[in-house]
Amino acid sequence: MLTLPSEILIEDEGLRDGLQNEKRAFSIDEKLHFIHGLEACGVRRIQVGSFVHPKWVPQMADTDALFARLTAVPGVVHTALVLNLRGVERAMAAGVRHLSMSISASETHSLRNTNRTLEESKRHIIPMIETALANGIEVRAGIQSALGCGFGGEVPVERVCEIAATYSTLGAQEINIADTAGLGNPQSVFESVSRVREVIGSHTAISLHLHDTRGLGLANMLAGLQAGVRIFDAALGGLGGCPFIPAAAGNIATEDAAFALEQMGVKTGIDWQGLCGLALEMESLLGRTLPSRMAHVLQKAA
Amino acid sequence: MLTLPSEILIEDEGLRDGLQNEKRAFSIDEKLHFIHGLEACGVRRIQVGSFVHPKWVPQMADTDALFARLTAVPGVVHTALVLNLRGVERAMAAGVRHLSMSISASETHSLRNTNRTLEESKRHIIPMIETALANGIEVRAGIQSALGCGFGGEVPVERVCEIAATYSTLGAQEINIADTAGLGNPQSVFESVSRVREVIGSHTAISLHLHDTRGLGLANMLAGLQAGVRIFDAALGGLGGCPFIPAAAGNIATEDAAFALEQMGVKTGIDWQGLCGLALEMESLLGRTLPSRMAHVLQKAA
Repeated sequence: MLTLPSEILIEDEGLRDGLQNEKRAFSIDEKLHFIHGLEACGVRRIQVGSFVHPKWVPQMADTDALFARLTAVPGVVHTALVLNLRGVERAMAAGVRHLSMSISASETHSLRNTNRTLEESKRHIIPMIETALANGIEVRAGIQSALGCGFGGEVPVERVCEIAATYSTLGAQEINIADTAGLGNPQSVFESVSRVREVIGSHTAISLHLHDTRGLGLANMLAGLQAGVRIFDAALGGLGGCPFIPAAAGNIATEDAAFALEQMGVKTGIDWQGLCGLALEMESLLGRTLPSRMAHVLQKAA
Repeated sequence: MLTLPSEILIEDEGLRDGLQNEKRAFSIDEKLHFIHGLEACGVRRIQVGSFVHPKWVPQMADTDALFARLTAVPGVVHTALVLNLRGVERAMAAGVRHLSMSISASETHSLRNTNRTLEESKRHIIPMIETALANGIEVRAGIQSALGCGFGGEVPVERVCEIAATYSTLGAQEINIADTAGLGNPQSVFESVSRVREVIGSHTAISLHLHDTRGLGLANMLAGLQAGVRIFDAALGGLGGCPFIPAAAGNIATEDAAFALEQMGVKTGIDWQGLCGLALEMESLLGRTLPSRMAHVLQKAA
């Protein structure tokens, strides 16, 4: 048999990585409806939004107000993305206990996305991590474009390791290796995770963020599992993409990932069939077909 | 690194498993056009059709005439599917040197598809294999529904092993484990291949036929590679399905499989970009979008 873990954690990012790419604005009540739906289906970590200037991502303008209306659920982490110190401060004021923050391992991607060089990005994120940790917030520090750059920038695995080492030294609880443009393959996923693990030791968790641009999302997840990853990002319905990266497709669908994992005997705690219904609801709100496979397999079988 | 082979063989089945599911009839000239396209892109084994009664599969009625017009290409095997002794005889008359034949491991599937029990199917295929081998034809003997039955029939791995043992004893050169309805997962693929390998020893080749119903086709291929499989079926554009199995999707797309393999450093000899163009040609003939990922990634990037 393939050596796989008995249990893993999925972070659903549909409401952030997904909705930030959609033209349709979702009200707080609509977002709460999906958050409650995800909770009811057993999703234990939910990235509900980002603290970012509303001018840049208007879909995320209400994240402070959204957190004010969230009810704590035992065993469920509500998390958010922050892009700068101002975001960390807003998250603290909103009572957030877990945050994601990240920089790109591709100089080209970094310049295009944030107008900062890699060195400037590092100088920018260090005080964010320090401030969050000093205030008792759990930090998940991410490396975007870790498996290839959608703009053609080079991404040597050594650079990914170097960023991971910085994060680990600062005390981040989790390092997120992100295939932002969906350019990774099972071998490169396995190699990156293994190399990062060597550099950071066993203390810090590693998670994977996998876009499905080339249809390799679930194969990459399998390679990640074999490399020892126990936390995976996914998005309801396979929502997502990247407004700055041409042809980047959505994340692996949470229901597809959970289904595949359960089939292989890996526990997720997730009711994937319930999520399929929620994904179809999202489809009808957006008025287009989402990439989810299992939602449509169930739909056809019904 | 993941342990992967340095080289594998892909058999393209688009013109048989694919076209038999299409309403549109393809002329011999059209089929030849795609065969020559596949050859030009480096595909080294092509299943060009089946010898089956035209009443059942009219799209395959011209397979004898098609073989008469094929030109031998060094290093390329033109193969076909046969369903009965009459088919073997027709194939022999047409000068075919390599044949696929198979039975289902699911009693339910077998009864629905051929009106034969599993025992009757075995008695039916044995003389087909014997006749082909006695006439110097290479035989690839397949096990349909080996990873699950679309009709809900049970498929214990022991039964798959038992059929494989029969094939191996008869002297078939290759055993094809077919996920006809696309119900397998990486763990079940790995287990089936490993168990069959234990039973048949190292002499006989094992190949995998993977439908992508649940989006796990490429992940299943990865598991197969790790279990030692060196021959994979695929279909141009992701053509295919099964008229007898509800909601079964097409095969993994040859261009997607070849791309993924090349990315992982596994040689296929295939120009996947060339195949993407051929897949788009097939799309426009069929007038619908095919499942191929890389054909559309390239199309968007163009």
